[in-house]
Amino acid sequence: MSRRELLMMIGAMAGSATSYNAMASMGLVEESRFNGPPKLDGDPKGASVLILGAGIAGMVAAMELRNAGYKVKVLEYNSRAGGRNWSIRGGDVYTELGGATQHCEFDKGLYINPGPWRLPYNHHGILDYARRLGVRVEPFQQLNFNAYVHSTQAFGGKPQRYREIQTDYLGHVSELLSKVTQQGKLNEMVSKEDEASLLDSLRRIGALDRRYRYVPGRESSNRRGFQKPPGGGLDARPIYSKDLTGLSEILKSGLWRSIGAGWSTEFQSTIFEPVGGMGKIGEAFGRELADLIEYERKVVKVHQNRKGVEVTYVDPKTDGNPRTVTADYCLCTIPLSVLSQIDLNINPKMQAAINAVPYAAAIKIGLQFKRRFWEQDEHIYGGISYTDLPIGSIGYPNTDYFQPGKGVLLGGYMFGPNAMKFTAMPPEERVKKAVEYGAQIHAQYPQEFDNGVAVGWHRVPWTLGCFGTWTDELRAQHYDDLCQIDHRFLVAGEHASYIPGWQEGAVTSAIDAITRLHHKVINA
Amino acid sequence: MSRRELLMMIGAMAGSATSYNAMASMGLVEESRFNGPPKLDGDPKGASVLILGAGIAGMVAAMELRNAGYKVKVLEYNSRAGGRNWSIRGGDVYTELGGATQHCEFDKGLYINPGPWRLPYNHHGILDYARRLGVRVEPFQQLNFNAYVHSTQAFGGKPQRYREIQTDYLGHVSELLSKVTQQGKLNEMVSKEDEASLLDSLRRIGALDRRYRYVPGRESSNRRGFQKPPGGGLDARPIYSKDLTGLSEILKSGLWRSIGAGWSTEFQSTIFEPVGGMGKIGEAFGRELADLIEYERKVVKVHQNRKGVEVTYVDPKTDGNPRTVTADYCLCTIPLSVLSQIDLNINPKMQAAINAVPYAAAIKIGLQFKRRFWEQDEHIYGGISYTDLPIGSIGYPNTDYFQPGKGVLLGGYMFGPNAMKFTAMPPEERVKKAVEYGAQIHAQYPQEFDNGVAVGWHRVPWTLGCFGTWTDELRAQHYDDLCQIDHRFLVAGEHASYIPGWQEGAVTSAIDAITRLHHKVINA
Repeated sequence: MSRRELLMMIGAMAGSATSYNAMASMGLVEESRFNGPPKLDGDPKGASVLILGAGIAGMVAAMELRNAGYKVKVLEYNSRAGGRNWSIRGGDVYTELGGATQHCEFDKGLYINPGPWRLPYNHHGILDYARRLGVRVEPFQQLNFNAYVHSTQAFGGKPQRYREIQTDYLGHVSELLSKVTQQGKLNEMVSKEDEASLLDSLRRIGALDRRYRYVPGRESSNRRGFQKPPGGGLDARPIYSKDLTGLSEILKSGLWRSIGAGWSTEFQSTIFEPVGGMGKIGEAFGRELADLIEYERKVVKVHQNRKGVEVTYVDPKTDGNPRTVTADYCLCTIPLSVLSQIDLNINPKMQAAINAVPYAAAIKIGLQFKRRFWEQDEHIYGGISYTDLPIGSIGYPNTDYFQPGKGVLLGGYMFGPNAMKFTAMPPEERVKKAVEYGAQIHAQYPQEFDNGVAVGWHRVPWTLGCFGTWTDELRAQHYDDLCQIDHRFLVAGEHASYIPGWQEGAVTSAIDAITRLHHKVINA
Repeated sequence: MSRRELLMMIGAMAGSATSYNAMASMGLVEESRFNGPPKLDGDPKGASVLILGAGIAGMVAAMELRNAGYKVKVLEYNSRAGGRNWSIRGGDVYTELGGATQHCEFDKGLYINPGPWRLPYNHHGILDYARRLGVRVEPFQQLNFNAYVHSTQAFGGKPQRYREIQTDYLGHVSELLSKVTQQGKLNEMVSKEDEASLLDSLRRIGALDRRYRYVPGRESSNRRGFQKPPGGGLDARPIYSKDLTGLSEILKSGLWRSIGAGWSTEFQSTIFEPVGGMGKIGEAFGRELADLIEYERKVVKVHQNRKGVEVTYVDPKTDGNPRTVTADYCLCTIPLSVLSQIDLNINPKMQAAINAVPYAAAIKIGLQFKRRFWEQDEHIYGGISYTDLPIGSIGYPNTDYFQPGKGVLLGGYMFGPNAMKFTAMPPEERVKKAVEYGAQIHAQYPQEFDNGVAVGWHRVPWTLGCFGTWTDELRAQHYDDLCQIDHRFLVAGEHASYIPGWQEGAVTSAIDAITRLHHKVINA
């Protein structure tokens, strides 16, 4: 009896809940590594932990260790909590490496999230901390059928609506597969018995007509949109969409690459964002841990000995002398890009791991416009348009729909070489370029543009990059060395996870780290 | 030169905005029949219009005619505005045909929408009235990848996650098409030049591996979910999903029928719902038109003569004698199911049309539970689960995510024979059955159930059905006759539209009707 057959039998006998539990107990399904806050039972007997970094990993660790009875102190480089969990709002000032300072001029209530902006439903850890901290969330639209997909090399540079490209592509390939099915060319792969259902299913997937053709008509228009949609009263009959895009045209355009943008686990609906900006989570953590966090502490040295750890820091805003704090243990969440430059006395394997991981280039550009023209003129409510222009994509605000007043777009979100190029420009030039490029998608840009900010992550002084970019090879060589406890020192953060670049990586990494640390303390 | 070539040339020369305008001017694209409120220029010189029904159609008409200078009065059967735009909340009392009375016991803030519950982004009319009336909206989740698809006849009756079924289906069919492509079996249909892109695209659509196979591994797990998802720290490596569902199993299960639930124009993201319930729109209209609407007026006769119309009504709550009101014109939005029983003196063709349209059977069941277990236990945030059980589907609330306290599910949404069967039961029996069936999907039902309400539309005294179910044949025969102005009488509502069962049909029908009426008045 196969495992599936066993499960079906259990299911048939005992109802779905039993079957689900049976599957869970057999290790077949697990939605998340997060199963609630860690249970740190046992008395730490006054042990102290110094946490470096008040980002998500550091603050999750601080909160849980505090709750478990540890003496906790957090040293943070910035003057705010959150780290990459960060929203830039009107009135905020940000100085990057090299000294360029941006004064954000967004209207009240508007913001851009330079770092993470999404909370996938299956990132149970970060969502649970948001809930516990009283941070309200609202849905994030990953996939908007009425947003654009755009190639400068296709359709005369005219943006296409996502709904047209997905519908036409799926229509054509479903028709192709229907044809070969009917021609008997799948005989060795699909049983006679399944053939009729396969054809039925392809008709549904592809919006094919009764004869399994993808053609202008009711079915295709109901998916891609109408030439003239149905209405009310006289003269209300719909006119079907006539100009279906050919398969060859879609394939050559490359726009099919956007299909399935909402299908991978981290982008599947339902996705969330905090009401008021991602930074609300970091801010809430900061309030919760107000008496534990010391701000404006630049760590320059971490040394451990048999008795404890000594951490040396300077206040970057003053000329004050270095100061030293001590604790029994040190949990370090400083990004490896920065940590590799700090004086550490740790084992060579861990040091090699810290030195090995390159950091991703990424840049986000927030543009304020005088009105929400994407909604008012183009009926795009949230979601993302994709383009082969250097800006990569345009993200529309997923909040305050249909409201009057100004609005802030994510006017560019770049990785790799384009991010490098843009980060090399002065901030005002990045914004200017984003407006120029974006005007190829939204003609309203030049007239409606108001002001903008641009965060290039390689110039962010406290991260020097966006997130750790592990390869399979690097992981095999270094990952386990990075995550071990080295006497009294250990690390946590998205860089110490298999969910790089996501806050869930930081949360699960922190929980794993403190759970192991606690085990060591209790059994010391 | 083809039209597409012309457009591409225009686009290349002049930029996207010009091209879009060119397309619009050539009549190639139109998103909606609604282009803002009607412009009713010209003086109606004190003409009066009596509107029957304070549903969406009647109130759109009343607001615009009032704004254009008409004397307007609205007669409404119910003691509230909105018609099928309706939210039932705790404390509400509803008596259906036959006398069964339900007292809704939902907690404060919780509701069910027995009628419409969605506002598609392309229903510009109803969305614009919501905006003008100050009704805030929030996203509705049509497609939730973590919700269930369920067949009593497959997988031992165990609900499957939508993400698993869509991923496995698209994986298998993409692999099939890849195979025949590689075997040269598409040679007559796909050019050699396009073959490589087709294979690339199928790999993306189907989450295939490098050799175009749909197999357990990183690609398929990133879509369908993992056996053990990635985490942070040590032992954080993901374990890929091993038990992919076979194509034959999916085809036999029928669960593929749910794929594409979010792909048709009315279900594509972004979809909205009013914050606090759909009824917020009707209520806002009611406040806006407070001095125009008379409630508890049951119209029994509409007669017109050369000078005007005489409408006779009774107050169903009293034994009062019939009363008559007069006006120059009458716009009637009463559902045809009811209107066909009212004494009218109209032309036989219009009367035949009114008599011809059957009304859909539909029922919605709202169930309050003691906690939001679908979120807390199963991580389903909004959206819909589909089942072949008589309840048809389960709809999860798209609001107040992650909040503690009770929650209301749409515990059943049935059309056709199942709706008939459920409507024939007493309300408490409908609710009981919905809980019994739903327990096959959510084992928590029996323990967590609190109370419920059930609205069977054929027993709603003021509609006797859910909406007009036109067939193509009926439309050919009767639709234009229904929509004409018969001297001083004309109709509006979803039944006088090509968008049956949607509020947008009511809005566009009303605007078309009053625009033609106004033209007649001005030129009289």
